[in-house]
Amino acid sequence: MTAALPESHRDLLERPLFAHLATIRPDGGPQSSAMWFDWDGARVRFTHTTTRQKYRNLLSEGRVSFHVQDPEHPYRTLEVRGRVESMDPDPDATFYRRLQARYGMEHPVFDADVRVVIVVAPSTFVAVDGGMTKAEVVALEKLLSNLATDEET
Amino acid sequence: MTAALPESHRDLLERPLFAHLATIRPDGGPQSSAMWFDWDGARVRFTHTTTRQKYRNLLSEGRVSFHVQDPEHPYRTLEVRGRVESMDPDPDATFYRRLQARYGMEHPVFDADVRVVIVVAPSTFVAVDGGMTKAEVVALEKLLSNLATDEET
Repeated sequence: MTAALPESHRDLLERPLFAHLATIRPDGGPQSSAMWFDWDGARVRFTHTTTRQKYRNLLSEGRVSFHVQDPEHPYRTLEVRGRVESMDPDPDATFYRRLQARYGMEHPVFDADVRVVIVVAPSTFVAVDGGMTKAEVVALEKLLSNLATDEET
Repeated sequence: MTAALPESHRDLLERPLFAHLATIRPDGGPQSSAMWFDWDGARVRFTHTTTRQKYRNLLSEGRVSFHVQDPEHPYRTLEVRGRVESMDPDPDATFYRRLQARYGMEHPVFDADVRVVIVVAPSTFVAVDGGMTKAEVVALEKLLSNLATDEET
């Protein structure tokens, strides 16, 4: 768990992968969905519309968490926690079209009037390798080392 | 959004895919991570340990949401919302080993003493095709139909 993006997992934000985004509904329960995203080295940006539940969720609770999974190595993931900094209109769908290009799926836009850019400022990064965080690897190594010591004595 | 699992997306729970699980931390913020799971037609089961943050999250807030993404068709997903029904000890790691076999990754278990089975009773299923829920498809079709009518008149 670090305040800066670990170099080892930077590619997961730079590649056009899916953000598995957790938001909180006004009733306090969680919601989960796969989202396109963009990363400029400081902020994460999502495209969305003001007509959907997730927009209402983010109006009432700005804290979000998402993780990105390496498709080639699925036990290598990065969780990003942060807070919505702004939700800005995207009236010409400029940002939406940029994301379409990033994900290789360009198609006509019919909902530019309700499109917004969700800007998230990350606060915490959790890098996972082999299904384990660094803290979990340290704990397992300690356990194995203790087991080895037990066997020797 | 349905109370029963849509037949069209049943395979996403039956195949050994990843659940992208959203839980809520005791401070009210969301947490997001990739999890193995099992589905028996009525309940979703996860393996976890009592030493981790997610366990503490679920003790304080039993509502969860997760989605599963079709690796071959990533815009086809299923969100499942529900509530933790129980968290039962797995002292011989029987359930953990069963999940290892389901995911083709059998390895020694060192933490059976803290392993638990998280049992989730689903309440809502949201099937997504082409990145859209059924309600969103209907809304888009209506919009396109109105556009076509406008052009004709």
